[in-house]
Amino acid sequence: MGGVKLYGSPMSTCTARVLLCLEEVGAEYELVPVSTLTGEQKSPAHLARNPFGQIPALEDGDLVLFESRAISKYVLRKYKESGTDLLKEGNLAESAMVEVWLEAESQQYNPAISPIVYQSLVIPKMRGGSPDQTIIDASLEKFKKVLEVYEARLSKSKYLAGDFFSLADLSHFPYTRYLMVTPYASVFESYPHVKAWWEDITSRPAFKKVSAGMLGS
Amino acid sequence: MGGVKLYGSPMSTCTARVLLCLEEVGAEYELVPVSTLTGEQKSPAHLARNPFGQIPALEDGDLVLFESRAISKYVLRKYKESGTDLLKEGNLAESAMVEVWLEAESQQYNPAISPIVYQSLVIPKMRGGSPDQTIIDASLEKFKKVLEVYEARLSKSKYLAGDFFSLADLSHFPYTRYLMVTPYASVFESYPHVKAWWEDITSRPAFKKVSAGMLGS
Repeated sequence: MGGVKLYGSPMSTCTARVLLCLEEVGAEYELVPVSTLTGEQKSPAHLARNPFGQIPALEDGDLVLFESRAISKYVLRKYKESGTDLLKEGNLAESAMVEVWLEAESQQYNPAISPIVYQSLVIPKMRGGSPDQTIIDASLEKFKKVLEVYEARLSKSKYLAGDFFSLADLSHFPYTRYLMVTPYASVFESYPHVKAWWEDITSRPAFKKVSAGMLGS
Repeated sequence: MGGVKLYGSPMSTCTARVLLCLEEVGAEYELVPVSTLTGEQKSPAHLARNPFGQIPALEDGDLVLFESRAISKYVLRKYKESGTDLLKEGNLAESAMVEVWLEAESQQYNPAISPIVYQSLVIPKMRGGSPDQTIIDASLEKFKKVLEVYEARLSKSKYLAGDFFSLADLSHFPYTRYLMVTPYASVFESYPHVKAWWEDITSRPAFKKVSAGMLGS
């Protein structure tokens, strides 16, 4: 059995999420570049992998998957014998808390942080445009409210789902990693438990490796 | 062992998602009303259940969960001996396809359909305001592109994740149910496989029961 093929770009937040999972479990994989700079994600070849025309997509034999959080779970389930258990599916309550904080990332954290990163990093560095400060300011206010909830949570448990590192923590990495190279990185200074959590998860070898392939490293 | 307690409102889309799961598995449960009309979801009692101040939340003994898609998975896992298997976690490829299309609902379908429902149903019926036609038109264009992908998918398999009904299908119910009582219900007429899928899933007894508690039924 050969390794899996991941179609995407190491700079992309959603590709980085899956790369982290592949690295955490030590999977054999090939990263096949699909560049969003040239619009390759909308090519017929890639639309056959992901009908929504986005990256990443994963190919494992005949199975083709898209949506980074879905691919991440597949990778973690497929390689669970690696000894790295980031889903805790053997425990009903622990797996539920992993799902809760993975959804918090998707529905609360990501909608607040992503416009800040898009406006202050993607637009000036990749699109040659000027950031919209009104959007940044509104998103920062929203993001601070989210961080208050995270601060309270992380003052009670070391990681989001409990006292164990999980996919819920991992999934927050890509956007936060980019926030840290914007002028708004200092927002974390007001949330000491969030800051300590961030320092903890970014010290993991998988995170250092994936981070090196991202912008502004 | 007593039943679980679900805090929410039968009219709420996210509460309806969890109610469908509870009904599908035949769980014993109590629905404890939390009214968003009076802002009760921001009360200290509810913030202790969901720090983001949203409904629903689920209480099962000492375990308290929020985020409807996470709660849904917990319910389906806890009651899997009911014989209703909507996650297919015993099969790596099938469970991956359930996750892919559940994420498609969350990341593609929901962002396109929810502004249509909010503008054309929630604002006039619950907020006493006037819909913003510009938002409706832009969201309809986006939603039609999503429906094209769904039409192609459902012309190849009976349900979204494959030839079996799953949480991925169920999760699309609440917002689609509300779209069907707006002037934009007719958009489904152009997508015959999507329409047949909708008629199939809404014929399930659980869907009829939960639908009866929603607005405009």
